[in-house]
Parts: sequence; structure tokens; C-alpha cells
Amino acid sequence: MAVRRQTPALIAISMGDPAGIGPEIVLKAAATVARRRGAPSLVVIGDLNVMRETARRLRGVPAPYAWSSDAGLRRGIAVIPTGELPGRSRRPGHPTPAGGDASFQYVVRGAHMAMSGDVDALVTAPISKEGWYRAGHEYPGHSELVAEIGRAREWRMMFAGDQLKLALVTVHMGLRQVSSTLTRTRVLNTIRLIHSHLREGAGRVRPRIAVLGFNPHAGENGLFGDEEIRAIEPAIRAARRTGIDAFGPLPPDTAFIRSNGRFNFDAAVAMYHDQGLIPLKTLEFDRAVNVTLGLPFIRTSPDHGTAFDIAGTGRANPSSMVAAIEYAWRAVDSRRGRRAA
Amino acid sequence: MAVRRQTPALIAISMGDPAGIGPEIVLKAAATVARRRGAPSLVVIGDLNVMRETARRLRGVPAPYAWSSDAGLRRGIAVIPTGELPGRSRRPGHPTPAGGDASFQYVVRGAHMAMSGDVDALVTAPISKEGWYRAGHEYPGHSELVAEIGRAREWRMMFAGDQLKLALVTVHMGLRQVSSTLTRTRVLNTIRLIHSHLREGAGRVRPRIAVLGFNPHAGENGLFGDEEIRAIEPAIRAARRTGIDAFGPLPPDTAFIRSNGRFNFDAAVAMYHDQGLIPLKTLEFDRAVNVTLGLPFIRTSPDHGTAFDIAGTGRANPSSMVAAIEYAWRAVDSRRGRRAA
Repeated sequence: MAVRRQTPALIAISMGDPAGIGPEIVLKAAATVARRRGAPSLVVIGDLNVMRETARRLRGVPAPYAWSSDAGLRRGIAVIPTGELPGRSRRPGHPTPAGGDASFQYVVRGAHMAMSGDVDALVTAPISKEGWYRAGHEYPGHSELVAEIGRAREWRMMFAGDQLKLALVTVHMGLRQVSSTLTRTRVLNTIRLIHSHLREGAGRVRPRIAVLGFNPHAGENGLFGDEEIRAIEPAIRAARRTGIDAFGPLPPDTAFIRSNGRFNFDAAVAMYHDQGLIPLKTLEFDRAVNVTLGLPFIRTSPDHGTAFDIAGTGRANPSSMVAAIEYAWRAVDSRRGRRAA
Repeated sequence: MAVRRQTPALIAISMGDPAGIGPEIVLKAAATVARRRGAPSLVVIGDLNVMRETARRLRGVPAPYAWSSDAGLRRGIAVIPTGELPGRSRRPGHPTPAGGDASFQYVVRGAHMAMSGDVDALVTAPISKEGWYRAGHEYPGHSELVAEIGRAREWRMMFAGDQLKLALVTVHMGLRQVSSTLTRTRVLNTIRLIHSHLREGAGRVRPRIAVLGFNPHAGENGLFGDEEIRAIEPAIRAARRTGIDAFGPLPPDTAFIRSNGRFNFDAAVAMYHDQGLIPLKTLEFDRAVNVTLGLPFIRTSPDHGTAFDIAGTGRANPSSMVAAIEYAWRAVDSRRGRRAA
């Protein structure tokens, strides 16, 4: 292992649903990332035929080849074939249960490789939740699956854009349920997880973390709701006692006003899905990267779906996938730097 | 009355808390608006001494004079004195109960003038809610007071920025309470009120109105909460049956992504305070204008507070007050145009 650690980062990419834009954006992003200085090595976990057929339709992308542990990496893009799909499951824009199942297996294999240290990070291309359900895999999304394989007791969704990074305390639940889910512990753990990530994965020594309120005007001292008083303020105090530079609770509506184009924090903690994702998507369009906090390995993904409607047209924009790979790459380097230091 | 209707719009401005930035931004904004072609006539309802003392500290602003109904308007800025404050209530940055009470009386008088048709619109400068409470006036803000004087059965808060206009279904309540407050009728009335406003006050023939969901992903067909199914969707259907071009419910997090810098709707309807105000303030900083929908007259205000900390320094930015006056002015002209047509 010592030898490999000297080489560029090795990042596994799960190919995503074969009928979606995953294969296309993986190839386009690989071509872009390969031009960077000290670029990471990439291995795709997916279907070799799909990757080859997609590469033939595109120009200027690396040629996919089947990776073998003996031969090592060479020019082009290495694919670790995981199953072989029949022709009808390889048609862009036409998702099938077999394709949905395969897209699940790619992630399982990638997460196990990351767990065992065979790769430094996992980047996941878009899957269809419906595809997973139809194939009998009842996970709301990637995060839940990788958290299970990573044996994470506590994990959180984080999003990183050019300007804005934020973690969510709660994610996929009705907004009415959020209040009873917000506890001091849950808020505190979110602050801790993003704090660790910013130190280890993004190289910040003492990151400044803005914690949002839950209610209008952050509750105005209990006038509108008690979530700030019973959960959020105690969590901020507890975090500060351990040396974390957390502050708030901020009135949510003014928290994302930038002065001179910058935020006065390194990352924000949002209490519910739309509180974080409205400003993130409004400001960052589809440049943001999805990061799973709390795993023993680094996992990122682009912040968009399979886009079955444009799959196979060659028009898919790889910028979010490029950002996901580059974010994982920087996080690997940052972790290595800390380990070496 | 027929004669006055031929003249420029007449807009009353309540001076706001005498210790806040209200007097300063009123004078600065009046100087800016006076340079516009066909500028409206402005009358300030406030304290003549405060206005004069503020004008002396600033350069290039109109000289305040006491308005009388006989003499009519002349050069400078007309003030309708409403009470006379003692010296200690005229110090910038030092709010007093007498000043809080006066700021309440200015709004009462302005709203009555607007109700009786003596002025075409009311623009309100910032007051301190605490100041009102200390003076015994228990209103959460301007909107509730003008709605009472305007005898509005249903009214809503609307915000208008350069790019984004939106109305709120609910405003100042704990987020946990919002779900039980959301009914088909309440959502429908909001759609109707902003629709009427866009037609009458903003001259849109068939405005396109985006209605947001309440839950993440707008509930994913009931997977996360039923507010869309029981309240929002029926309201949209009912609005469409009456010819209103409303659509939704939109997933809140992607609703404010612009394509080519523009929204694909004329206005949005948000279910709760921060759902609307996070994107509004993130995109529009303090350029947005607050508009009360459902009144028999036009009422706008800047979207910021008294800023006691910078009052008297001359550094207050009048741009939101300029926008509030200009929005009221356009709304008056639009209403007149419809009446004449």
C-alpha cells in the first residue's frame, strides 16, 4: 500500500443508471480532469459495453478499456466491469429494471472498494430512485446506501458550491415533521460533522460555521416557536465549548446575503431540506457537489439526476461531475496532507 | 377631484420613527424621485422639526415646509405636521416612547388619507415594533395596522424586487404552525390577490403565477406530507378554473433557478416566511419593496428597518425607499390607466 499512496489519488466512479446521462458525463468529466496537473486516476465501475458505446458517440473522450489488477492503469479510462447488460438495457433514455439493478451494484462495489482502501474516494453518477425501487432496492438514494456500507452511525448530506457550503440537519421528510426531529444532539452532530469535514477534507484550521434558526426571524426569542431555544442554541453553545467556531441561530432570510460577494462563514448548517437547498440552488445552479459527511471514506456526487430525456443526445453538461471529482480529489489530498503532517 | 386626477400622482409618506433613518431616506429619496419625468408629488406625514434638522445635516435634499391646503404644493418637500416632538425625541439613534407613538400616528393619518382618496398611495418609512409596543400599540407591523384601517378582510404581504415578485400565504408564525394554517382557501386567496395586483397595479394582462409546494420535492405525491394534495393543488385547480394562469406546486428548491437570468413566471406564491424571503433577500439584497395586497389603496414600504445604529450619520442608503416610492407611483399610473381605458 505504501507504494500506491505516493501516486496520484485513485477515485472510483460508479457509472449510474445506464439509460441516463451518467456514462456520458463520466467520460466528458474524465477528459476534463485528465488535463489537470497531478490529476487523479479514475476507475469506472459499470458496464464496459455501455461505456464504449457512449464513447463512440462522443468526441475527444478517453477510450474505455477493461481494467485488470495485473496490467494496471494505462491510457484511456479504466472500467471495472460489474455484470454485463443486455442490449435493451443499454439504450439511452429507456430505463429498465436490469439497468436499475446494475446501477445499484456499481455503488455497492464502489463503496466496498472505498471501505477496504482499494480506492481513495467514491464519486457516484446519477441513479434513478424509481429504478432502484423497481429492482427491489428500497433506498431513498445513494447516501443511505453508502452510509449503510460505511457503517456510519451518524451521517449528513452536505452540499458544496463555488461560494456556499452547507450541511442539512434533516433531509427527506415532510416539513411538518421537522420540528419534532430537531434535537440538540442532532443539531450538534451536524455541526461536528461539517466541522470535521472542513478541517480534514477542506484544510480549514478553524472553520467558521453559521447555524440557521428554524423559525421566521430565528423565533424572536420564543415569540414564534421554541426550536431555537430548546435545540439550536444549546447545540451552538455545546459546540463552542469544544472549541468549534459556530455562531447563530441566524434569521434564515438574511443569512445568505453576501457582503462584497462573500459569505462571512465557511459553511452553514440548515435545519431542513429547502432552507438549505433554496439558497444553494438559487445561487449555485447545478455547480454544487453533494458530499456525504460521517463516512469513513470520501463520497461525492453531482447535484442532478439521470436526465433520461436528454440521455444519448450528447448534450449533457458534465460540469457538476467535474466538480464532484475535483472536490473528492482535493479532499483526498487534504486528508493525505494531514496524515503526513 | 376630476382636476387633481389630471395632475401627477400624490403620494403620502409616513416619516417612520424619528430616531431612525426614516427622515434621512425620505429626503434623499424625494430628491432622487423629483428628477424623474412626470414625478409624483410627495407629502410627508411627520414632524416638521425632525425633517428640517435632518435636511440641514444633508446636502442636495429638498427643503421641508409645512403644507397647507390653501397654498398647495411648492418647491421643496411638503410636510403635514402631525404632533410636535420634544427635543429629546428628535435625536437620531435614541428612540423614545413619544417617538414610537408619533410614528404610529403618522401611519394612521396616512392610511386615512389614502382611504378617503386625499392621496393616491401611502409609502411607509421604517418604524420600530418595540417602539409601537412601548407606546401601547400592539401591532406586529405596518401591514396589520393599514389592513385594519383599510378594512381588508383578506390581505397578504408581497415583496417586489427587480427580478422577483412574491406573495406569502403565511407570515409571522412558528414554522411548526404553518401546516395547520395552510388551507385551500388561504392559498387560493393569495393567488387571487397577487393576480389582481399584477393586473391592476403592474399592468400585466395575464400574469403567470408560480405556486410553490410546502414539502421537499413538493411532497413527491404524498410521500413527504399531504399539504400539496389537500390544500395547494386544489387551490391551483380552483384558480385555473377562474382563468388565472397559476401553475405548480413547484419543488421549492429548484423554483428560483433562473434560465438566462430570468424567471419563467411573473410572480410566485410562497407558503411560509422564509420560503419566500430566503430567495428574495439572497437575490435582491435590500432592493425589494414590501407591498400590502388586498387593501383598497396602494401601500408600499422599503424592506429594511429603522437602523438606529447609523441614524444621523448621513450614511443611510435610500435605494429601497426610492424603489418603494417608484413602485407606488407606477401602481397609481397603472390603476389610472385601467380606469381611463
